[in-house]
Amino acid sequence: MSFELKILGSNSAAPAHNRYQTAQILKIDGTLFLIDCGEGTQLRLKKYGVKLTRIDCIFISHLHGDHYLGLVGLISTMNLYHRQQQLTIFGPIGLSEIITLQLRYSETVLNFKVDFEELNPLEPQIIYESKKIIIKSFPLNHRINCTGFSFREKPKKRRLIKEKINSIPLADRVDLKNGVDILDDDGKIVYKSEEFTLPAKRSRSYAYCSDTKYDETIVEWIKNVDLLYHEATFLDELIERAEATFHSTAKQAAKIAKKAQVKKLIIGHFSIRYKELHPLLAEAREVFEDTELAIEGESISIEE
Amino acid sequence: MSFELKILGSNSAAPAHNRYQTAQILKIDGTLFLIDCGEGTQLRLKKYGVKLTRIDCIFISHLHGDHYLGLVGLISTMNLYHRQQQLTIFGPIGLSEIITLQLRYSETVLNFKVDFEELNPLEPQIIYESKKIIIKSFPLNHRINCTGFSFREKPKKRRLIKEKINSIPLADRVDLKNGVDILDDDGKIVYKSEEFTLPAKRSRSYAYCSDTKYDETIVEWIKNVDLLYHEATFLDELIERAEATFHSTAKQAAKIAKKAQVKKLIIGHFSIRYKELHPLLAEAREVFEDTELAIEGESISIEE
Repeated sequence: MSFELKILGSNSAAPAHNRYQTAQILKIDGTLFLIDCGEGTQLRLKKYGVKLTRIDCIFISHLHGDHYLGLVGLISTMNLYHRQQQLTIFGPIGLSEIITLQLRYSETVLNFKVDFEELNPLEPQIIYESKKIIIKSFPLNHRINCTGFSFREKPKKRRLIKEKINSIPLADRVDLKNGVDILDDDGKIVYKSEEFTLPAKRSRSYAYCSDTKYDETIVEWIKNVDLLYHEATFLDELIERAEATFHSTAKQAAKIAKKAQVKKLIIGHFSIRYKELHPLLAEAREVFEDTELAIEGESISIEE
Repeated sequence: MSFELKILGSNSAAPAHNRYQTAQILKIDGTLFLIDCGEGTQLRLKKYGVKLTRIDCIFISHLHGDHYLGLVGLISTMNLYHRQQQLTIFGPIGLSEIITLQLRYSETVLNFKVDFEELNPLEPQIIYESKKIIIKSFPLNHRINCTGFSFREKPKKRRLIKEKINSIPLADRVDLKNGVDILDDDGKIVYKSEEFTLPAKRSRSYAYCSDTKYDETIVEWIKNVDLLYHEATFLDELIERAEATFHSTAKQAAKIAKKAQVKKLIIGHFSIRYKELHPLLAEAREVFEDTELAIEGESISIEE
């Protein structure tokens, strides 16, 4: 079962130094989530072999152009490619109005239904739940309404040991997977769950925080995730600029990762002033060692 | 004095085969006109060394996404690069509403004024006039309101022969350039314009027609131009598809070029179904020999 993040873009504000604007694909067990959609995202999807028609849901953090301007073009191309499956888009107030207005003027009638789900910019909320995963949005601290997202697998069941369970009825197997021992009428254990199953695999998690100034209130929502993406627009020597523009420094991103006790940090949303990114990485690693740069085309898999 | 067209993109509908969506830069004597602005145009401008802040006017033919979705991102990046000079955008009804809505939601306050000039989709009109050039819009025949543009240099003056005019008063030189002979009080010719000047250089012209079905009524507006860009979405074997989608075939583009007696034709807006473009070129050349393909990064200069 896959749990893989692919970076499609990680530059802030404008494309520069062959870096594109923010977009990511999170693939959980075959389901594709597109997170933010900067201008030209459809080109990056194509370049990295992601089929547009296979994207299940789109999550837009906020309405600064570098996070959503690729969305209308992407929807139009999905339509051209005969998508029929409903597309759910989670985004801020206004996104639906912007997209609808553009489709109206182009007199585009889509082959598929677009379901806009408006995010609450002030409170965390569960926005998506399936048998296996749960996705929440939570407020970030930016110049305009902006939300982060967390993607967590639900607790998993214990795994049956195939060689041992041939004679066990199917209904009992379900109990064993749930950690429940099977008893006879006298209350005596017939099958002990621990004997017939292996421990459940771990539930993996990812949190996405872009754009935001340094704000410890988000720690609560991203606590203990396996992988945290946190914006790191500037070096800490520009902390005042970060403060003024409601962005973070690499050091601040690392501090948040540390406080939230995440396993791994990936930083992005780099200012166009930085051609070379290693100083940002070095700065973050001083505070939180397991940090990586968000580089276009690269993927991070989280093992079960 | 330059009169140069640079192709930044020439694919229809969606980017494919390393071809981007429609955008062109026309440079006339140092003035930069951007014609259409598909998604990612800012990247192509950067790639080909066109400074975003130097673009004087933008012309948007219609509100299908492949012709204008790069505009908001371009404006945002111009702002980031501290543009201060007013930007004039000629475009259809609705363009101003779309752009303004997006800037409002991103809470962007631009450093420069944007002047939206709404085009008349039904009648030709003069939309821009300077000392040297005149630009007109004219209706095309597409699914939604769509206009073409013609750019023509005004008639030029005769050129003074430097070695011969030293003793001639400045006021008289102006007359000579205008082809007027200088007479004395008795009506006798003192300086004959033809003796002291060379013929005026020719006035150059370019016309842009995308998107449109085959429609001979446009011939009148593009008559005799040096260079005509005409869309050629399909091969003629798909003429019914062209008709149904209000596009043209390569053969039809060539027919229009022939009827309008233009000097050179450049075809573009290629359907994503064509990886190889030479069949389109060959088809057009059968009808109008001096045809070229619109290829990203290539330029065509028109000599005086």
